[in-house]
Amino acid sequence: MKINVFGFLATIILIVSLAPFSYASDPSPLQDFCVALDDSAAPVFVNGKFCKNPNMVVADDFYFSGLNKPGNTSNAVGSNVTAVNVNQLPGLNTLGISAVRIDYAPYGLNPPHTHPRATEILVVLKGTLYVGFVTSNPANPANENKLFTKYLNPGDVFVFPEGLIHFQFNAGKTNAIAFAGLSSQNPGVITIANAVFGSDPTINPEVLAKAFQVEKNVIDTLIQAQS
Amino acid sequence: MKINVFGFLATIILIVSLAPFSYASDPSPLQDFCVALDDSAAPVFVNGKFCKNPNMVVADDFYFSGLNKPGNTSNAVGSNVTAVNVNQLPGLNTLGISAVRIDYAPYGLNPPHTHPRATEILVVLKGTLYVGFVTSNPANPANENKLFTKYLNPGDVFVFPEGLIHFQFNAGKTNAIAFAGLSSQNPGVITIANAVFGSDPTINPEVLAKAFQVEKNVIDTLIQAQS
Amino acid sequence: MKINVFGFLATIILIVSLAPFSYASDPSPLQDFCVALDDSAAPVFVNGKFCKNPNMVVADDFYFSGLNKPGNTSNAVGSNVTAVNVNQLPGLNTLGISAVRIDYAPYGLNPPHTHPRATEILVVLKGTLYVGFVTSNPANPANENKLFTKYLNPGDVFVFPEGLIHFQFNAGKTNAIAFAGLSSQNPGVITIANAVFGSDPTINPEVLAKAFQVEKNVIDTLIQAQS
Amino acid sequence: MKINVFGFLATIILIVSLAPFSYASDPSPLQDFCVALDDSAAPVFVNGKFCKNPNMVVADDFYFSGLNKPGNTSNAVGSNVTAVNVNQLPGLNTLGISAVRIDYAPYGLNPPHTHPRATEILVVLKGTLYVGFVTSNPANPANENKLFTKYLNPGDVFVFPEGLIHFQFNAGKTNAIAFAGLSSQNPGVITIANAVFGSDPTINPEVLAKAFQVEKNVIDTLIQAQS
Amino acid sequence: MKINVFGFLATIILIVSLAPFSYASDPSPLQDFCVALDDSAAPVFVNGKFCKNPNMVVADDFYFSGLNKPGNTSNAVGSNVTAVNVNQLPGLNTLGISAVRIDYAPYGLNPPHTHPRATEILVVLKGTLYVGFVTSNPANPANENKLFTKYLNPGDVFVFPEGLIHFQFNAGKTNAIAFAGLSSQNPGVITIANAVFGSDPTINPEVLAKAFQVEKNVIDTLIQAQS
Amino acid sequence: MKINVFGFLATIILIVSLAPFSYASDPSPLQDFCVALDDSAAPVFVNGKFCKNPNMVVADDFYFSGLNKPGNTSNAVGSNVTAVNVNQLPGLNTLGISAVRIDYAPYGLNPPHTHPRATEILVVLKGTLYVGFVTSNPANPANENKLFTKYLNPGDVFVFPEGLIHFQFNAGKTNAIAFAGLSSQNPGVITIANAVFGSDPTINPEVLAKAFQVEKNVIDTLIQAQS
Repeated sequence: MKINVFGFLATIILIVSLAPFSYASDPSPLQDFCVALDDSAAPVFVNGKFCKNPNMVVADDFYFSGLNKPGNTSNAVGSNVTAVNVNQLPGLNTLGISAVRIDYAPYGLNPPHTHPRATEILVVLKGTLYVGFVTSNPANPANENKLFTKYLNPGDVFVFPEGLIHFQFNAGKTNAIAFAGLSSQNPGVITIANAVFGSDPTINPEVLAKAFQVEKNVIDTLIQAQS
Repeated sequence: MKINVFGFLATIILIVSLAPFSYASDPSPLQDFCVALDDSAAPVFVNGKFCKNPNMVVADDFYFSGLNKPGNTSNAVGSNVTAVNVNQLPGLNTLGISAVRIDYAPYGLNPPHTHPRATEILVVLKGTLYVGFVTSNPANPANENKLFTKYLNPGDVFVFPEGLIHFQFNAGKTNAIAFAGLSSQNPGVITIANAVFGSDPTINPEVLAKAFQVEKNVIDTLIQAQS
Repeated sequence: MKINVFGFLATIILIVSLAPFSYASDPSPLQDFCVALDDSAAPVFVNGKFCKNPNMVVADDFYFSGLNKPGNTSNAVGSNVTAVNVNQLPGLNTLGISAVRIDYAPYGLNPPHTHPRATEILVVLKGTLYVGFVTSNPANPANENKLFTKYLNPGDVFVFPEGLIHFQFNAGKTNAIAFAGLSSQNPGVITIANAVFGSDPTINPEVLAKAFQVEKNVIDTLIQAQS
Repeated sequence: MKINVFGFLATIILIVSLAPFSYASDPSPLQDFCVALDDSAAPVFVNGKFCKNPNMVVADDFYFSGLNKPGNTSNAVGSNVTAVNVNQLPGLNTLGISAVRIDYAPYGLNPPHTHPRATEILVVLKGTLYVGFVTSNPANPANENKLFTKYLNPGDVFVFPEGLIHFQFNAGKTNAIAFAGLSSQNPGVITIANAVFGSDPTINPEVLAKAFQVEKNVIDTLIQAQS
Repeated sequence: MKINVFGFLATIILIVSLAPFSYASDPSPLQDFCVALDDSAAPVFVNGKFCKNPNMVVADDFYFSGLNKPGNTSNAVGSNVTAVNVNQLPGLNTLGISAVRIDYAPYGLNPPHTHPRATEILVVLKGTLYVGFVTSNPANPANENKLFTKYLNPGDVFVFPEGLIHFQFNAGKTNAIAFAGLSSQNPGVITIANAVFGSDPTINPEVLAKAFQVEKNVIDTLIQAQS
Repeated sequence: MKINVFGFLATIILIVSLAPFSYASDPSPLQDFCVALDDSAAPVFVNGKFCKNPNMVVADDFYFSGLNKPGNTSNAVGSNVTAVNVNQLPGLNTLGISAVRIDYAPYGLNPPHTHPRATEILVVLKGTLYVGFVTSNPANPANENKLFTKYLNPGDVFVFPEGLIHFQFNAGKTNAIAFAGLSSQNPGVITIANAVFGSDPTINPEVLAKAFQVEKNVIDTLIQAQS
């Protein structure tokens, strides 16, 4: 039986250099660093990502550029999120943090969403944002689904606790910019409108009509609006 | 200066026996057990709950009864969740697990919701459920907001991964019953319809109209439906 | 040097589809899901399991059927545990929870055991169970090896804290059934009788005689009883 | 309403200086240190321990003396464990580690036991130890309850994985000494013989007879031997 | 015995509102939020902080203002860190993230330091920074104490892995500004020069002379420079 | 397409048996054990290490010998650390603990260093050690960089909290010996003198001069001393 170690090495290296997308993160650094390999074409995955040989790691593995560039807000909601997580910056793997730049057109909205794996700390750089989050259904009905809101100006900081639905709205006539840190290298995002009314395939409209206690035609309107 | 230790003890005991609601859990058992005290009237809290003196712990602290009783499904969605978490069963504190019984009237729905702090494993005891969950917005657009669904019959088990939006619908003409385990002693629940359209106070309808890309009157209909 | 990426892919896929057993779990979900691959024939392992390409994941990966079927209790102790953990339901990988169905013949016993990686929350569906757990040797001798017991009837719930020795005994003349959730996708089980008196190879009987402070012939009786 | 802050302070200080026993630990340091207060007389507890004001912390809070002294092995099993965990060394609180010295008389035994919250790394200082541990019941029956054993001499190191049943036996004619580190500030210990046959109150002998598949009189012998 | 619950409540509230400094954080949110109380005058502490009654929490608990204001860089190293962690923004408690603004005078330096409990992700807003970090002493001597450096311009992002020594130097003639996120609500900072040569009391200069392999007068120079 | 499973198996086995160095650990055991494979020649890594097939694990995987042998202290600082972590003892993988033996020549020094991923509990076997650690820069300036020191004699135990700078100095005329446990299977070590003044390449001396507030020639002296 003939074995080619270097062939195997090359196979893996080839695999990990082929594809642009990936899916994982990790909460606890277990060595100095574990720079993520691109696993989008890999046949197998792990909880988190496969990592580069530490002997080959270079400074650029910890580097990303471009957060000075405005995102394109010419879309339906008038906002744009430029993400810098483990999928864009492989050195973040296992290190439990990531960042985003958010651009808002006048009256632009970063619509209600949750990060299933992260808290967000947001800093306003420019403009005035109206932000808020809603609590869960706690044991105490008096606290159920409480909305906390605040108007934020440049230099203001606000926290959106992990897993809670939150949003930011540009309350002013000019563009707004914010930076945010997230407590995971792969925080995930669930945009409520898309996940509920725009999933693939669509959730049964009868189910949604009962869930939202409205007529099915209202649901149809909502579903069409996401497509 | 005169100090009354027992007065202090009594104060705390009095405080913790006054009130019915509480707010916390904990993922990692750090001693054999740490039976939760009712903290609803406490002036201060901790991440998780204050615990009973272990010398006073009894078997009943690990006991709950009543999951054989059907929940009342005479409500708008036709379902009822009977929770057994750290708020009902104090011995669960620090132990990272809880349970629920879910009853469904014919065509009853446990509407789309997330558990911000738990995965759910569901077992069907009676009836036929149509269940599903939606993925987040991953790096790979091809996988964005994918809906996974399944029809379940008695003895079937299904998993709803932590933080993802999911639902169960009774697809049959008879009552249905399911039991589920959740991977936290305080999993939390965010019912999408209530949190988005029924928060207190209401999220600005203009914000919601932009988020869901519909006219404001559609939003008004949705808001009224939750109240 | 010729490299065949698809050959490598096929190799892995072949490996992971060959064998029925596996050994790992993981406490913290780091992406929406990480469906376990069967690693029983794999040449290498990880802490937890290798996972399926998320693009290939289907609803059935989160599904298991058969918990409506009674387990076979025709054995020495008169009980049977049907496990639904990551080894049976690959979608549980990284999600920190699993379930079991336990069947008890009349006077059947789920003998004293520990779960080294999980707390158990048990719900009685049918019959009357006498259950108990024993604490560890704490700093306070007054609390050492305290036994907590309870009789449970249908709808009753009881908690067995992580790592502690516990048992359930069917105290009635009819079959009994319980469902339980466990706070790990791979909780592990150490049945005391088997691990101490039935290990492979056997622990030196002299060692066991000193440990249990009895004559060697008593130990021989115990060892023979497990084989 | 008159409030006396210093009275309250003194109350707490008095409470925490009264009693010798405590029950908790914590896996994750969240500040430089969190020196445990003696909580044995406290009316309430937390998951882990209340801590000393950091302004009052002194070097002695991180100090323990006496591990050079042999433990008294004049007991039934001929061994003695001198523990240095959070209950003896308050500075260990939140820091996830502890230590023990174990003394063995000739043919002395540290009997089969588990640490529900820790792995143990043992170093032999003197003598020859015969040590072993038993695996759990895994998915693969071929690996069930496998016993791993080794003879150890001075300078040898051995690892007992978290939660597994293990023992050390002095195989020589002279005293033996070992030091061990444990991966928790409150590892816990469950001595199998004591927990199963010597609990308070005793586990029903009928239950134990069925569990170990022996006659009740064998169980009675075992129970009497622990008392 | 007369007990005044409200007196006790008031006592605690008084205590927690007296003092400006505190010492703790927590990695894992166990409820929607657990807003920190000021514990600087508290008689007892926990691993993390005591929290406010959730019924009293308001939006301002998640809010901080002032990151638009330049820090005062008129100091020896020509840099200033404005921290926004749990000590400044109580809503961050248990949520595992914090932020800082760093101002650099021309040729100003944020000197070599470690964060014992956090990774840092830094975004340059203005100016040109020369940044670097040094690895630990790994198993492979070839990788020991490797220095990774990079010049950063506005919009550039760089990661400093948890626990490693790192620095930022303003390489330009103008002021520079950076924002950073840190993966803990209480990351801690150990400035090497201060901790080694400026501790209170001073580390014995003989010890330091041997550690740095220089004459004692060199150490004296370094100690004097920190005072 | 022809696939050779055994060729793949052999490839991996060959890879993992080639090289002497590795870089990872893991805090949480997720199965009974996960014995590390030597990953020094592996093309890909994980957060932690790849593990051996559990069917092939033997007792020697949990065994290390040689801690009875003095380390060679004929070096500049007069001390030697013999490490027993996952790189030397593969059975420690995922189990969160390791050990070291430290030898000190008369007046030998284990110089100021941090363990980025571990607390250390040290036991003195022989000699008299002067030990200390320095706190971080906390919110309360009064506690900044406090030095805690203690003289230790045989049988004394001392704790160095995770991530803090600490040292041990042999204060006596004879050799000294200590054993220590560390709360990670891969604790890491950053020797301050080496990391700051002896990195590869060297940190810019201008940067260091500003950091330590001394003339560049002092820095040059320090840099030369590490080479």
